[in-house]
Amino acid sequence: MRVKIDASLSYHFAQAADVVLALEAIRAADQRIVSDHLSLTPASSLTLADGPEELGRRQWTTASGDVTIRYQALVDVTRGHVNIAGLYVPLRRDLPHDVITYLMPSRYCESDRLAPFAESQFCAGAQGGDQVLQMAAWIYENFEYAPGVSDATTTATDSFLMRRGVCRDFAHTLISFCRAVGIPARMVSAYAPGINPPDFHAVVEVWLDNGWHLIDPTRLAAEDSLVRIAVGRDATDISFMTIFGAATLVSQIVDVSIAAPDAAPI
Amino acid sequence: MRVKIDASLSYHFAQAADVVLALEAIRAADQRIVSDHLSLTPASSLTLADGPEELGRRQWTTASGDVTIRYQALVDVTRGHVNIAGLYVPLRRDLPHDVITYLMPSRYCESDRLAPFAESQFCAGAQGGDQVLQMAAWIYENFEYAPGVSDATTTATDSFLMRRGVCRDFAHTLISFCRAVGIPARMVSAYAPGINPPDFHAVVEVWLDNGWHLIDPTRLAAEDSLVRIAVGRDATDISFMTIFGAATLVSQIVDVSIAAPDAAPI
Amino acid sequence: MRVKIDASLSYHFAQAADVVLALEAIRAADQRIVSDHLSLTPASSLTLADGPEELGRRQWTTASGDVTIRYQALVDVTRGHVNIAGLYVPLRRDLPHDVITYLMPSRYCESDRLAPFAESQFCAGAQGGDQVLQMAAWIYENFEYAPGVSDATTTATDSFLMRRGVCRDFAHTLISFCRAVGIPARMVSAYAPGINPPDFHAVVEVWLDNGWHLIDPTRLAAEDSLVRIAVGRDATDISFMTIFGAATLVSQIVDVSIAAPDAAPI
Amino acid sequence: MRVKIDASLSYHFAQAADVVLALEAIRAADQRIVSDHLSLTPASSLTLADGPEELGRRQWTTASGDVTIRYQALVDVTRGHVNIAGLYVPLRRDLPHDVITYLMPSRYCESDRLAPFAESQFCAGAQGGDQVLQMAAWIYENFEYAPGVSDATTTATDSFLMRRGVCRDFAHTLISFCRAVGIPARMVSAYAPGINPPDFHAVVEVWLDNGWHLIDPTRLAAEDSLVRIAVGRDATDISFMTIFGAATLVSQIVDVSIAAPDAAPI
Repeated sequence: MRVKIDASLSYHFAQAADVVLALEAIRAADQRIVSDHLSLTPASSLTLADGPEELGRRQWTTASGDVTIRYQALVDVTRGHVNIAGLYVPLRRDLPHDVITYLMPSRYCESDRLAPFAESQFCAGAQGGDQVLQMAAWIYENFEYAPGVSDATTTATDSFLMRRGVCRDFAHTLISFCRAVGIPARMVSAYAPGINPPDFHAVVEVWLDNGWHLIDPTRLAAEDSLVRIAVGRDATDISFMTIFGAATLVSQIVDVSIAAPDAAPI
Repeated sequence: MRVKIDASLSYHFAQAADVVLALEAIRAADQRIVSDHLSLTPASSLTLADGPEELGRRQWTTASGDVTIRYQALVDVTRGHVNIAGLYVPLRRDLPHDVITYLMPSRYCESDRLAPFAESQFCAGAQGGDQVLQMAAWIYENFEYAPGVSDATTTATDSFLMRRGVCRDFAHTLISFCRAVGIPARMVSAYAPGINPPDFHAVVEVWLDNGWHLIDPTRLAAEDSLVRIAVGRDATDISFMTIFGAATLVSQIVDVSIAAPDAAPI
Repeated sequence: MRVKIDASLSYHFAQAADVVLALEAIRAADQRIVSDHLSLTPASSLTLADGPEELGRRQWTTASGDVTIRYQALVDVTRGHVNIAGLYVPLRRDLPHDVITYLMPSRYCESDRLAPFAESQFCAGAQGGDQVLQMAAWIYENFEYAPGVSDATTTATDSFLMRRGVCRDFAHTLISFCRAVGIPARMVSAYAPGINPPDFHAVVEVWLDNGWHLIDPTRLAAEDSLVRIAVGRDATDISFMTIFGAATLVSQIVDVSIAAPDAAPI
Repeated sequence: MRVKIDASLSYHFAQAADVVLALEAIRAADQRIVSDHLSLTPASSLTLADGPEELGRRQWTTASGDVTIRYQALVDVTRGHVNIAGLYVPLRRDLPHDVITYLMPSRYCESDRLAPFAESQFCAGAQGGDQVLQMAAWIYENFEYAPGVSDATTTATDSFLMRRGVCRDFAHTLISFCRAVGIPARMVSAYAPGINPPDFHAVVEVWLDNGWHLIDPTRLAAEDSLVRIAVGRDATDISFMTIFGAATLVSQIVDVSIAAPDAAPI
């Protein structure tokens, strides 16, 4: 599936600030980048942060005054239909080191606090992929998708109590449930065709059968159309723009669509 | 300084559980392991978890029934006197990838929630190492060292409000302040000679001048005598024993002392 | 049912402190005080706080040094078997003023935060007394009675997440559920014969059918044997001893038993 | 000072809901109501809730569909300049029963959690009215008045950490500080001439010298011009509109101005 992305963000920085941009599609086997381009207006230098590419590309820049950031890309998403039913959970001691961290509670995913519920609700029957599907279904059925009720301080515990929120909150809750029952889970920002209103999306990856698998507890996007951007423990790690200072959003347009298989590179 | 360690932990496991042990001294330039030995009674296999050794050695095992874990070591701590006064904070964009994570809030160190206080209290004057010393002094002067008032759910915000706690809570608070003002900080478990009552200790490492530097906000231990065990974002990552299941502590003896420079290996 | 009470509390006050004692049985139609006596050793004056007697008798005193407080009483509990099944909830607008306050969230009963769960779990079927019984049964079935996991800062939300606690925590949770679904509920401290280990007890009163009715979500005590002491919104209002300052508990004996119907007054 | 009030609130109720309105000025010695009128469009019956008038007049109604509520009043505020400097705190044991409740923590004013700070910051010097002024000044100097950062779930602890908020948050924080240091404090909703943008206001009353005294920690309004509406422990008790159900705000106009001393009654 060929996906076309055109995201444009305008901010005002009253004072110069260091900024990390996590806007570019990850280069990976399940999504081949045909062409892409990240640009700043006025032009400013970008410095690629070091780090494993599988967690996403992050660029440092310094921003001041009025700044527009634009990312255009054409990506072939090749992962196909994702079906985690029947997938098993590896033995804990066989987990790679960089997977174990995703079993632990984090800033917004206090899996320790949600463990009593998760254990009592989800541990009697299904295991592995089936258990993840059961937990995602519980969230989908019991949560209301409601913009404006959560903010940057809302944690999975808050969302669990409110039973409302946006993609970020659905994802935090599912991640917490998974970790609570012993399944490594992490958060992924993504471009998703067809989301309405158009915006960045946040979904979940679970570690099953020795690999990471996508799942969207909001059911707003099909997993086979998602272009993954950045990966981390929770919203802390995957913000499309981490500002060390202050800025005001002026406008944001995120245009993501399914393109013809032979759509020309950007 | 030659440090002798003899730690012995007895637990009862009503049901078999996976366990990660983080009890061994880190092999590193600032602390040379003369000899050490980790043993389980009854004997049980240990599997070294993969991962960067600078973050500590972690061993997987499976425990059931009555289990005693013993770690004996002789370690030459060679880091000498630690003085962070005058050390500078590197530019953010020059931070290595694996350091940036220690700028972000974590489960027990909600640096975002403590930022308004930290910015208003600690950002007018001193920078870098001097600023860290100022923040550590504020905690030392305003907190009471009080066993029993905090538990495994207590976060830095809770400790900041209570102004009481133990080494874990002092460390979480200093880490949060540091991150809030832009200084990478992480938590380190350690063996500390002379702590009374004898127990595991928890201290802080800050990233200054392109390296990590120890600081103990409780002032219970001298930084030049600490044997570092495990490193992580907060208490989540450095527990000396992470139990995936349940266990009851039967007894714990942690004996750490300064040995003669020519003390014989264990 | 004639109940005999002998409670003795010893505290050490390093500095003189104002203290409110709420230890005496309420004088009310459902529990007739045959005889009772509150005394301090060394002797100290007691000043009855004004306020409605139906909320309990509270005595001011000033305590310093070693103080023993003893309350002895013989009380005929005449309320008989409590059965709230079938009782209805009055129209809100018909609620007396001093009942409405028990519909609102309070320090430890954040009924607003637990409302999404309570509404989804308990609002499809039963109403009034039946709904209260259903909510109390849910707590009894899903909570573990566990001393030592909660403390004076634990709220109903914390208890709901932990699914563990003592009488105080069971009561806070039931009160929050009741308020969330529109049933006024308040907390009552009580002497309860047969509690093991012997201690003060905390239960719930709900406003149904134009009156208050007792219910014990821990099922540790029979409602017809409870001697009510103090009534309030939550643990904030009904502590048997509110200390404006600091004190150390030296010993506490609470001896409550069912006496012969003709047992002699104290 | 003669104050003219014209408040008009329009809501849409998708389903019929019980509503308590607390919009009318309190009849009291410090504010004489020249004339006032509360009306609903379409017309609907109002039932005055019983309860002490000094805490405000509350009216029950049932609302459905589109409803406009209007309150018009002309009030002579006669309390004059409020100066609490030098006022003393009565002995605790002399506090009337209905004042003691305002020493205790409540839903949004967790004075117990803020006590360590308040005791360390504000207990070394000034007492009584001077101490209140010092605490109010601390809030004024350290908080930013910032609409949009707090919501109905924000507590005094949250505000203390954020150091930002609106009148509600300033009031909750001051109330918590006062209770923490032993001064009874409660919350008052008010009409305040000159507030910009025009809105309902929330301020604090402290119990000093055997009476309640107004103080506005935001310094947006002069205490001698405030028309008090409702009194309670915190925002829980004084909402101008408590809806048992759901409604959507359509529009709100709160017009409060200083009128000529001989302005004609409404």
